[in-house]
Amino acid sequence: MRKKSRFWRLFSLTMLITGLLMLSTGIAHAQGNDEAIANLAQSIDTVWVLIAGFLVFFMQCGFGFLEAGFVRSKNVVNIMAENFLDTTMTTMGFWAAGFGIMFGSGNGLFGTEWFFLQGIPSEYAGLPFYAFFFFQFAFSAAASTIASGLMAERTDFRADLTYSFVVGLVIYPVVGHWVWGGDGWLAERGMLDFAGSTVVHLVGAFVGLAGTLVLGKRLDKEFGINTIRGHNIPLAAIGTFVLWLAWFGFNPGSTLGASDPNSIALIVLNTDFAATTGAITAIFLSYFHTKKWDVSMAFNGSLAGLVAITAPCAFVTPEASLIIGVIAGVLVYYGVGLMEILKIDDPVGAFPVHGVNGIFGTLSVGLFATDGGLFYGDGFSQLGTQALGVTATILFVFPTSLIMFRIIDAVIGLRVPPEVEKAGIDGFYHGAYSYPEFTSSYGLPTAKAVSPEAISMPSSKPTTGD
Amino acid sequence: MRKKSRFWRLFSLTMLITGLLMLSTGIAHAQGNDEAIANLAQSIDTVWVLIAGFLVFFMQCGFGFLEAGFVRSKNVVNIMAENFLDTTMTTMGFWAAGFGIMFGSGNGLFGTEWFFLQGIPSEYAGLPFYAFFFFQFAFSAAASTIASGLMAERTDFRADLTYSFVVGLVIYPVVGHWVWGGDGWLAERGMLDFAGSTVVHLVGAFVGLAGTLVLGKRLDKEFGINTIRGHNIPLAAIGTFVLWLAWFGFNPGSTLGASDPNSIALIVLNTDFAATTGAITAIFLSYFHTKKWDVSMAFNGSLAGLVAITAPCAFVTPEASLIIGVIAGVLVYYGVGLMEILKIDDPVGAFPVHGVNGIFGTLSVGLFATDGGLFYGDGFSQLGTQALGVTATILFVFPTSLIMFRIIDAVIGLRVPPEVEKAGIDGFYHGAYSYPEFTSSYGLPTAKAVSPEAISMPSSKPTTGD
Amino acid sequence: MRKKSRFWRLFSLTMLITGLLMLSTGIAHAQGNDEAIANLAQSIDTVWVLIAGFLVFFMQCGFGFLEAGFVRSKNVVNIMAENFLDTTMTTMGFWAAGFGIMFGSGNGLFGTEWFFLQGIPSEYAGLPFYAFFFFQFAFSAAASTIASGLMAERTDFRADLTYSFVVGLVIYPVVGHWVWGGDGWLAERGMLDFAGSTVVHLVGAFVGLAGTLVLGKRLDKEFGINTIRGHNIPLAAIGTFVLWLAWFGFNPGSTLGASDPNSIALIVLNTDFAATTGAITAIFLSYFHTKKWDVSMAFNGSLAGLVAITAPCAFVTPEASLIIGVIAGVLVYYGVGLMEILKIDDPVGAFPVHGVNGIFGTLSVGLFATDGGLFYGDGFSQLGTQALGVTATILFVFPTSLIMFRIIDAVIGLRVPPEVEKAGIDGFYHGAYSYPEFTSSYGLPTAKAVSPEAISMPSSKPTTGD
Repeated sequence: MRKKSRFWRLFSLTMLITGLLMLSTGIAHAQGNDEAIANLAQSIDTVWVLIAGFLVFFMQCGFGFLEAGFVRSKNVVNIMAENFLDTTMTTMGFWAAGFGIMFGSGNGLFGTEWFFLQGIPSEYAGLPFYAFFFFQFAFSAAASTIASGLMAERTDFRADLTYSFVVGLVIYPVVGHWVWGGDGWLAERGMLDFAGSTVVHLVGAFVGLAGTLVLGKRLDKEFGINTIRGHNIPLAAIGTFVLWLAWFGFNPGSTLGASDPNSIALIVLNTDFAATTGAITAIFLSYFHTKKWDVSMAFNGSLAGLVAITAPCAFVTPEASLIIGVIAGVLVYYGVGLMEILKIDDPVGAFPVHGVNGIFGTLSVGLFATDGGLFYGDGFSQLGTQALGVTATILFVFPTSLIMFRIIDAVIGLRVPPEVEKAGIDGFYHGAYSYPEFTSSYGLPTAKAVSPEAISMPSSKPTTGD
Repeated sequence: MRKKSRFWRLFSLTMLITGLLMLSTGIAHAQGNDEAIANLAQSIDTVWVLIAGFLVFFMQCGFGFLEAGFVRSKNVVNIMAENFLDTTMTTMGFWAAGFGIMFGSGNGLFGTEWFFLQGIPSEYAGLPFYAFFFFQFAFSAAASTIASGLMAERTDFRADLTYSFVVGLVIYPVVGHWVWGGDGWLAERGMLDFAGSTVVHLVGAFVGLAGTLVLGKRLDKEFGINTIRGHNIPLAAIGTFVLWLAWFGFNPGSTLGASDPNSIALIVLNTDFAATTGAITAIFLSYFHTKKWDVSMAFNGSLAGLVAITAPCAFVTPEASLIIGVIAGVLVYYGVGLMEILKIDDPVGAFPVHGVNGIFGTLSVGLFATDGGLFYGDGFSQLGTQALGVTATILFVFPTSLIMFRIIDAVIGLRVPPEVEKAGIDGFYHGAYSYPEFTSSYGLPTAKAVSPEAISMPSSKPTTGD
Repeated sequence: MRKKSRFWRLFSLTMLITGLLMLSTGIAHAQGNDEAIANLAQSIDTVWVLIAGFLVFFMQCGFGFLEAGFVRSKNVVNIMAENFLDTTMTTMGFWAAGFGIMFGSGNGLFGTEWFFLQGIPSEYAGLPFYAFFFFQFAFSAAASTIASGLMAERTDFRADLTYSFVVGLVIYPVVGHWVWGGDGWLAERGMLDFAGSTVVHLVGAFVGLAGTLVLGKRLDKEFGINTIRGHNIPLAAIGTFVLWLAWFGFNPGSTLGASDPNSIALIVLNTDFAATTGAITAIFLSYFHTKKWDVSMAFNGSLAGLVAITAPCAFVTPEASLIIGVIAGVLVYYGVGLMEILKIDDPVGAFPVHGVNGIFGTLSVGLFATDGGLFYGDGFSQLGTQALGVTATILFVFPTSLIMFRIIDAVIGLRVPPEVEKAGIDGFYHGAYSYPEFTSSYGLPTAKAVSPEAISMPSSKPTTGD
């Protein structure tokens, strides 16, 4: 009996120790798994956000070609240079101060840290900090590029570089801080703008509106009739296809991670649905009114749908997205007409796309959001907040931009001289022609016939039109 | 002894309870890990399928530019409008009914649920349902776009919108249900078409063949000599590069997940290999026969390889893919010649690419599949099933499409009037020119010289050619 | 007491057995999790590397359009055909032997296994082998494509196909083995070239330099003044945008996995930063010197920044990347001038971009690397190793390429005959024109006016210029 008892004691003890060792190994193992799982989650989040950021970067290519296609061949080098350099200037401003103003802690109006990427933590929202920064960096370029569309074919190139820098440095980031900064005052009131109908598109559109009003119309522009045709429809088509593609980064990438695949899938589908019905609606309206299938309306209709769905994409159903796209298509069609009536020269139709639909998209959250939307019986509260956000953004961006453009006009000169505008900006300011071997019906001087060097550059302040 | 014994009892008991508690914690932990791992798996699957879907969407851009480059400048706005709007119309049809017919449960011939996205579950094949839907949605647009290539330069735009809608609504989905629907009759017989040599390309090609036969040839087309040159080779090159890129979504995305990285890598490599040897083979054949390096043959050769590898990409070795590409290049080269001999007007060479190689690609599964292929000693069984699938698809698609086009011709008019075709569709139907500042050698009316509004739109049924 | 004792014994035993069973289940479970986690890690690694590879593939599209935009319209079909076919020829050479020479085991100079993908293992660096192969396959195409830029507008097409094949077969892989092959002699000395400033860009540039020296200048080229303008700036802009996008695959994809998201994010940001300041610097220099904003300088400046950051992207800070971009912009600006002074005809500015900045980028690792860089107080050791790598690469590539081109010239003829060069390569060698409906100011024969078939193809060895 004693032997037996001792045996059992020893057995029990041995087993317990073995068990505990195995258990501690197992737990250590499970903890190792925890770490491995967290690392994997960060890997997939980072890959998703970076790839989305690549697509957002490619938006610059889309805007560049859309605008290039819609201007005349004598200004194509200029518009390409603007879209290419805008990106770089805006992002330098965003790196210097914009990012800190937008995402740094500070007060309800602006952030006050992280300038020049100094003093940054290693992570943000669970992402490597640089991944988050890159995504936002790519975003920042969009706003000033939108403005360049409204100001096409007459803006001085140095002025363009300057305002692009200022937009990335301060105008875009301030609104961004209000809505997306942790302690922004609109964020605290519950404004919802998932991927930037207001923050990006409305800001860009009102910067551009201020710009076109300060500039005045192009010399050749006559309102009421479409006097000035885009020189290259295939380029505009490339631009639109690329922008649609890029929006698949812009909207679902704003999840800042892949941990909720259902949300990502919903956002992607909503984005596609709104673009689809926007395009169909706008081109059918053009056929209804003019008996012509106006393909530029299809392009702008799809972009209108994309801009409108940008704010609500994570909050609404696919069915609502189809309706939002239809409304966006209607708004852009009549919006283009309204610009003619208001005699505002918007060469590529950027304001109806980004301004009108930036407003509509932001408000549509208050109408269609399954949680908080008026149409879902949740009253006017969210809608009111959205309207407040839109109003505040316009009241900040528009006067600020007017002041900025007046200063630029006084110091640098915002508009090219009339003789440069008539002959085309390309030769005078860039020393190059878009298609130097081919002669356009506007009598573009070819590379051989007229040397741009032969015409002296203006030293005086250019005459602004209007 | 008693104390000792009691001590051991208490010790054993304490240890056991401790151990069990730790164990249950560990197991709960491991179960938490299970969930975290399952979520991560769904995240990576979703990200992969959505990015693949973005590339498939971009295929529309590729087809648009390939076709735009291969037509004349007077019809470029039209072909752009078609490719852009086809996508939207097809996908609306697919949303309304096509998706339900294709993937809903029903019978061996068609599905009968999920119309207008109603009554859908939250997941499909482990993916968020909307992710699966988006990927298939993007796929559906390809079929009707292929048809637009065969019908280029003479099809009425309203007719184009109509047939695109019908293809997405019913023609493409029925074949899709047979092969990819859970209970489709060809799926049950073991037909293998990994990413759609039959479901997408063969369907599109036979819709287009029916279309071009009902339309008849273009007025300017003379068979046997290449009378009509594509107006812009760089556009066609962009289109081809974009399509090749897009195929990296089309084929490996059809895995519907990333859980088998070996399979994905094999599919990517096979896709690239077949495109590579297809391009080389076709351009070397052109040099062999004509002493000219025909770059359009290189483009079509790569596309032929891509179409051919679409069905077998997951089932064959890289070496077999190189051979499949070579055969595809041969088929497309002589296929283009055969169309001339048969006097079928196919402006962009779409039938040799998608029709001939859609058939070959589907059959090649029965020849080259490492499991079931004739060349691997597994007899004619798989090859017979593949041939049955091809035959059934043609027997359904071709007559159905003929009927559809006859009805469209009777109701809307399938073909533009001869005076419109001669002057170009762009001005008459779209009120725009592709390059309004430049005059083509075909005497394209420029924007200033001739107003398209000055020419009355035809109200009578257009005369069909042939 | 006995009963109690027996009870405890039984209880202990039961509990122990239960515990051990649960434990073993838990451990098996945890091991199952281990496997699941490892599979997920491979999934995300594979998805990342493949998507990066798709972007690298798309680089061919970028190079194609950059070069097409910078040449004259009479040689656009040719340059498109070259870029499209170069890819296929290089990769066939790389498949046949190049990959084995580069990555197979062997000696310090070259690998000696895996030719024609024979005898390969199932994995490499934790990736499915085919995923790794595909990524490297896409990489290999870049080197010969860079050379085609230096040799544009006068190289025989058969010669182009031949040298592309040889570059992929042996020249690129040998240098690749030295630096990236496991047992390469430069790798063993600690040379760091993260994504290929030396391996890809320097190799391509010196192949091309040898080519342009053997070819001699274009007949129309006069040095010192920019006599020959690129025919289509929008095409060059597309090319640049696409290349910048593609570099987001080229550099961070070279991590060969997603397990270190911090590193990936840093690489992406560094890549973007260097491109940004490269573009700004080069265009501001052009304005400073000429009072013109030369957009082609902005394009080449961004590419110079991208080439320079390719070697150090994983080893330096974002601030260093901004500086590297600035220096790259300076180097490319004056580099273009230097080529004029040295009377080397480089139609697209490929040598200043890929050669000069390939050298600078490789050396910059020794200057700016946070671990080992001269500016971080780590002395000249790394810099010396980098300089050795650059020197050895040039000493191997340049003479080898000279010999290769001399042999090709003797056997096939490297240069087209003068009459072909004057009239344009497109019609003679490809039987096609880039824009057959439009007449260029160089008097391009249109499709109707002159049939290329009417001019007999030269059978004798072409006269080399210079």
